[in-house]
Amino acid sequence: MTVRKKTIGIGLLGLGTVGTGVFNILKSQAAQIEKKTGVRLEIRKICVRSLKKHRAARASSKVITTRVDDILNDPAVDILVELIGGIHPAKEILLKAFAAGKHVVTANKALLAEEGKVIFLQAARHSRSLGFEASVCGGIPIIQAIREGLASNEISHFLGIVNGTCNSILSAMTQGSVNFETALRQAQEKGYAESDSRLDVDGIDSAHKLAVLARLAFRTEVDFRVIPVEGIRSLSALDIQYAKELGYVIKLLAIGKKTNSGLDLRVHPTMLPTDHPLANVWGVYNAVFLHADQAGDMLFYGRGAGMLPTASAVVGDMIEIAKKIHDGVSSESVFYEPPQKRKVLPIGETVSKYYLRFQVADKPGVLGRIAQTLGRNGISILSVHQKESHPTQSVPVVILTYQARESHLRAALRMIDAQKEVKEKTVVIRVEK
Amino acid sequence: MTVRKKTIGIGLLGLGTVGTGVFNILKSQAAQIEKKTGVRLEIRKICVRSLKKHRAARASSKVITTRVDDILNDPAVDILVELIGGIHPAKEILLKAFAAGKHVVTANKALLAEEGKVIFLQAARHSRSLGFEASVCGGIPIIQAIREGLASNEISHFLGIVNGTCNSILSAMTQGSVNFETALRQAQEKGYAESDSRLDVDGIDSAHKLAVLARLAFRTEVDFRVIPVEGIRSLSALDIQYAKELGYVIKLLAIGKKTNSGLDLRVHPTMLPTDHPLANVWGVYNAVFLHADQAGDMLFYGRGAGMLPTASAVVGDMIEIAKKIHDGVSSESVFYEPPQKRKVLPIGETVSKYYLRFQVADKPGVLGRIAQTLGRNGISILSVHQKESHPTQSVPVVILTYQARESHLRAALRMIDAQKEVKEKTVVIRVEK
Repeated sequence: MTVRKKTIGIGLLGLGTVGTGVFNILKSQAAQIEKKTGVRLEIRKICVRSLKKHRAARASSKVITTRVDDILNDPAVDILVELIGGIHPAKEILLKAFAAGKHVVTANKALLAEEGKVIFLQAARHSRSLGFEASVCGGIPIIQAIREGLASNEISHFLGIVNGTCNSILSAMTQGSVNFETALRQAQEKGYAESDSRLDVDGIDSAHKLAVLARLAFRTEVDFRVIPVEGIRSLSALDIQYAKELGYVIKLLAIGKKTNSGLDLRVHPTMLPTDHPLANVWGVYNAVFLHADQAGDMLFYGRGAGMLPTASAVVGDMIEIAKKIHDGVSSESVFYEPPQKRKVLPIGETVSKYYLRFQVADKPGVLGRIAQTLGRNGISILSVHQKESHPTQSVPVVILTYQARESHLRAALRMIDAQKEVKEKTVVIRVEK
Repeated sequence: MTVRKKTIGIGLLGLGTVGTGVFNILKSQAAQIEKKTGVRLEIRKICVRSLKKHRAARASSKVITTRVDDILNDPAVDILVELIGGIHPAKEILLKAFAAGKHVVTANKALLAEEGKVIFLQAARHSRSLGFEASVCGGIPIIQAIREGLASNEISHFLGIVNGTCNSILSAMTQGSVNFETALRQAQEKGYAESDSRLDVDGIDSAHKLAVLARLAFRTEVDFRVIPVEGIRSLSALDIQYAKELGYVIKLLAIGKKTNSGLDLRVHPTMLPTDHPLANVWGVYNAVFLHADQAGDMLFYGRGAGMLPTASAVVGDMIEIAKKIHDGVSSESVFYEPPQKRKVLPIGETVSKYYLRFQVADKPGVLGRIAQTLGRNGISILSVHQKESHPTQSVPVVILTYQARESHLRAALRMIDAQKEVKEKTVVIRVEK
């Protein structure tokens, strides 16, 4: 039995939370990784923005630099690990890295979502590998599962809780019955939410991950800019409470479905029955539920963020690429087949069940008119729940509908919300089964 | 960009349920697989026990044979796919296959559990790959996740629902409040249980999967014969009901823990709190919960058996090995490091919390004597629940304990069960958190 050893050179770009995690894992686990996998990962260069940055990780000053070119031009660097995030200059650096013959591992979902096309194409052109397990759901090996384990399957749809910040806020609102602002502040105090939480709370981060998953699962280019996105900011504790009474929980979901008319991709708060596998995912945990034609329904659950879970995914990718280099496999054996670009359905063309909360004057005839307007627009009612009057002048009426096209619903709601007995803009929450 | 094509020859051994599934996937998906992965999988030979067998799959009679040697001696066969199950002659065939330079994909958990040592060693000796994703949890890519995605992690423990037959029987007992015999008969009628269900119901199949998972997760040889195994045959609907009242469900778990004193591996009915991620896995579904030091807690959930889920895992392995052959990687890049053999703890040395149901005479002083005996043996009581008297002469008393060493518990129960006020053998169910 011949044993080939090889040390693979790593260039680390960024030494923030995840970068420090990667550094620490490599420092403490290098021997163990070599024993398990046959490859030795050695950090050759670490590029930081400021030279003060590297102190936390106690990296030797010999490997620290502030110039990206020191990594790009170092022939001893085989794999560039990009952990700076954002579109620029990450995009330009990755394009150069592939051209310079480096393989790349990245956790940068924004970049892959918004500029995936040129990044994947450049990797293919230069026959380099691109590892991005860490870009979606941190430590959960979902990318690998779709890429490899389920390679012979067609994936028809997936639903994901892919943002731990939002899920912990919704968990607090559901289990602690607090409102959004309180839950956000608590999450920030616990370190589960950034001080600037807009990317998370407004659903952008979830949409980035959705775009990455959809590209892979449906083998298609995805125009990130047209994905309908709603965050959790306007969600009220009242609707979470009513959902609970009806046997549902509300989760911020990244939804991907392949339909005959196009790709149904969206991010929004969604009602799920409490017995749905995703309904019991609480706190900072992430989970992706998917349906594969042969393997059936599956759920992957775990920590979606944090230093070590994300770093673990980065290192996993590094090991896979390092093994390929070690084995003398210079190119990805996966052909780059420029994926077809499928249309992303505008939200009006999507079909869903709906939870509707109307705030109406407590007068006879109001409910009848609402029901009539819904009916005329082709919306069938599943159930009606008249709620107790709150100390306002309006009474909440909750209606669950059968499946309907969103444009039809919107047309009905425009008419309904224009009625003078309807006191507030009607709340709409989509329902998945 | 150079594009290398290569067709990889497959020899299929066994054309039962899973074999037919593999045959059908390759027939319908070959072009799609080639497009996605760059390799073409072509069945060169199918070995069946009887020539009548191949008709269901409509395989060409040119590829059908009844002689294994036709596969082993065919230089056009790169990968042998073993789907006949059982120890003999599968073991001998695999050893010959590696020696003949074939890679192997197998779904045979019994073989890997009981003879894993010689099988893995032979594969390493001949630098051949061995794919066994299908041996545990069918379509769920758990083996790959542990082998690759979590490669830099240490796994400290895992809990698995790995037998769909038992889980569907327990689901019926829990949700339908039927007894074991009825639930088993129903499962057999629905096709979820074999007519000879002993391997499933008595926990042997779960123990096979436990041994395969433990070898991989803990990188150790496992002596399958010393794993403590209890099935679900003697589980009563009464205890399932009482567990429910206490906020628990009962699942047949495969448990693997690395402890300082040895490997804690066991299969037995286990009480789990209803908010445990495994508590909501119902019916024929499988799930594995594991803790990795970096990635944290994870759950993998999906269909553990059935023609297509299992065949999907087999084909996934075939693709991975085919890509290696295509890339000219002749050996597994994972070194064969003969894993250390760790001691499997005898059940008496394991530590657990316990649910105990005593059937006692309805007389004063009985409970006191039981509590005293438990205390003298170092068993602390968490709670006591006196149940309503049933139409028998004895009264059920349920006690939940704190963690205790099983040998201490058994010593206490020997004394307690010898008392004349104790009318039946005390029921013991271990509790996991």
